[in-house]
Amino acid sequence: MIRAVTDRFDAWEALERLRQASPLVHCITNYVAMDVTANALLAIGASPAMVHANEEVEDFVGISSALVVNIGTLSPAWVAAMERAAERAVALGKPWVLDPVGAGATPYRTGVARDLAGRKPAVVRGNASEILSLAGEVGGTKGVDSTRSADEASGIARELARGLGCVVAVTGEVDYVTDGVRTLAVHHGHEMMTRVTALGCALTGVTGAFLAVEPDPLLASAYALAIFGLAGEMAASGSIGPGTLRTRLLDALYVLDTVPQAEIRIQEVA
Amino acid sequence: MIRAVTDRFDAWEALERLRQASPLVHCITNYVAMDVTANALLAIGASPAMVHANEEVEDFVGISSALVVNIGTLSPAWVAAMERAAERAVALGKPWVLDPVGAGATPYRTGVARDLAGRKPAVVRGNASEILSLAGEVGGTKGVDSTRSADEASGIARELARGLGCVVAVTGEVDYVTDGVRTLAVHHGHEMMTRVTALGCALTGVTGAFLAVEPDPLLASAYALAIFGLAGEMAASGSIGPGTLRTRLLDALYVLDTVPQAEIRIQEVA
Amino acid sequence: MIRAVTDRFDAWEALERLRQASPLVHCITNYVAMDVTANALLAIGASPAMVHANEEVEDFVGISSALVVNIGTLSPAWVAAMERAAERAVALGKPWVLDPVGAGATPYRTGVARDLAGRKPAVVRGNASEILSLAGEVGGTKGVDSTRSADEASGIARELARGLGCVVAVTGEVDYVTDGVRTLAVHHGHEMMTRVTALGCALTGVTGAFLAVEPDPLLASAYALAIFGLAGEMAASGSIGPGTLRTRLLDALYVLDTVPQAEIRIQEVA
Repeated sequence: MIRAVTDRFDAWEALERLRQASPLVHCITNYVAMDVTANALLAIGASPAMVHANEEVEDFVGISSALVVNIGTLSPAWVAAMERAAERAVALGKPWVLDPVGAGATPYRTGVARDLAGRKPAVVRGNASEILSLAGEVGGTKGVDSTRSADEASGIARELARGLGCVVAVTGEVDYVTDGVRTLAVHHGHEMMTRVTALGCALTGVTGAFLAVEPDPLLASAYALAIFGLAGEMAASGSIGPGTLRTRLLDALYVLDTVPQAEIRIQEVA
Repeated sequence: MIRAVTDRFDAWEALERLRQASPLVHCITNYVAMDVTANALLAIGASPAMVHANEEVEDFVGISSALVVNIGTLSPAWVAAMERAAERAVALGKPWVLDPVGAGATPYRTGVARDLAGRKPAVVRGNASEILSLAGEVGGTKGVDSTRSADEASGIARELARGLGCVVAVTGEVDYVTDGVRTLAVHHGHEMMTRVTALGCALTGVTGAFLAVEPDPLLASAYALAIFGLAGEMAASGSIGPGTLRTRLLDALYVLDTVPQAEIRIQEVA
Repeated sequence: MIRAVTDRFDAWEALERLRQASPLVHCITNYVAMDVTANALLAIGASPAMVHANEEVEDFVGISSALVVNIGTLSPAWVAAMERAAERAVALGKPWVLDPVGAGATPYRTGVARDLAGRKPAVVRGNASEILSLAGEVGGTKGVDSTRSADEASGIARELARGLGCVVAVTGEVDYVTDGVRTLAVHHGHEMMTRVTALGCALTGVTGAFLAVEPDPLLASAYALAIFGLAGEMAASGSIGPGTLRTRLLDALYVLDTVPQAEIRIQEVA
């Protein structure tokens, strides 16, 4: 059974709140993703900052509205800062989102991802391989790319959400977002987006921005997926390749609420 | 009272010298800004290099024409390299420029920014919040974005310039550059530029390139602001959003002296 | 004497294999180059991952098809990871490619580059100054840019290839690739490419992808140079400046085998 639980007005309304608030989003993310993540957050109307020093992460969490943690190019010093920042966010009641990039690829990476996932994020956002790896499955990753479909992972994502006590978003051709009770399917995005680096990471950043303005992390995640995916569709339309798509995606995030608005395709799945 | 102290020929002439000399500009800058800073410097005709290891920063300063220090993603090891490089630049009589990104946001960041500002840079370039923070004011920053206008900060920038014995450039809707005696207002740039990450950092990089060819740091800063801002205006014209703007900005830096030249709007303010 | 040793079908056929295999390419590269390298590899059909932690580089080499090592923003911790990864690649019989960015600019950088070059890479890819520096010549570099032509360096590249027991690719207006016995000249690319940062680094990344599917490193290097250079030509055609070129280059890498195919200009030089 499929029924619509949100209509276009909710996501657009949340986007309007985001633009009004222009929340400061503290990102501890990977080197590859920093540029496009910061640009995506600026384009959508947030105020990003990339801050990772142990000497200031706690203070910076204190002035931010949400925290984004992404392990893409992890190393021990950065992981320590991630832990410290996450702990501070939880202590202050601020939402944080985890992107377990490449979980499953190496024991070190898998271990760090699982440890961070246990530190009360509001949302974990990954591809199917990463989510399956967090849930204890072995194999199925190819570096930082998934060899599994989100459909395969949606059931396990629900169990993982229950176990972690947070929202889990697993992205793929269709995206699934679940809090362990409800599961939403988001039908947005374009295949060519997988040929641009770090767009998943940028999406995680945008999820942080929505978490700053939408108290329900299930809805915040779904809105981020829908709006980002919709911008990707707009960008892909007419793009020759991934270079143009990346440029147009940032344009689309900037203007997508000023053009005739497309339908937001979010459905609750039973 | 407002009177023109430079006309368009000076900035264009300095740009021509820059293109002829193609100075090697040593950058110790943040992870987010590296790509766009290097691309802006290449587009304008300089030869950028990003070098931060303690083992080689002094040697690299020795072969460079100017040094750019930007604390955006600072950590203790990088700060040590910044100090070492700055000290070497001063010892060799080479100009260096400081971008105190996010000064005021955390005590650590503010402390590092103030310490570096005291190490004889030729120019400090920041937004209003950062400059006010360097001058000892508390509050007024939102992460790495300013909540204050450059107009508010121009008087304090002048005092700061006197105290530090260097040029201070405070950027905003109108930019102000001062050596503590003279203050120039630069009327260039476009609001959409604030929606592209690290353009302020790239501008600081370009300031380094002008410092390499223009001995007066007041003029070098004003030229950098004017030329970079003008390229931004050219880029913004007709851009749908910040993705396109960023691409066109690099194009504009590359061609802006080959198209009919716009008026450079630099004025001395009393 | 010049005679053609490859025709267009070989390079295109290797590209088709690359797209079919979509090899996982492990990159330990510099901060400036990460974004464009990952995007170039994705656009051409490979699966890139940027992984540098000592805790996981060996494991990651184990699941990858090729390794790319680039010293652009080196520091001791990263160099240790590079050594460890290279050693593991050799032990596993996996090809790795070295980009000795800025060799010759400082003693530290030159020392690291020479040490890595001695660790059995399949290919060393650099500009003329870097290759000459590896061969023991002093001077001739300006930061990370070359002041020498590839023509000057091609003879020394051949000797270096013999000494190191690997392929040496020296890039410039004409590119030369040699295994110490045979030398191929590749006539592709466009001057405006030198005004986009890290395209040489991205080319080294693409060389890694070809090494994953083409067992002869001489051919793999030549194919990478030809295909990347051809994409650059396509991108430069009609580009106003380097901003547009960069965007179009990624588009071209994505589509260049779907449009009428240009002649591949690779020649054996005696």
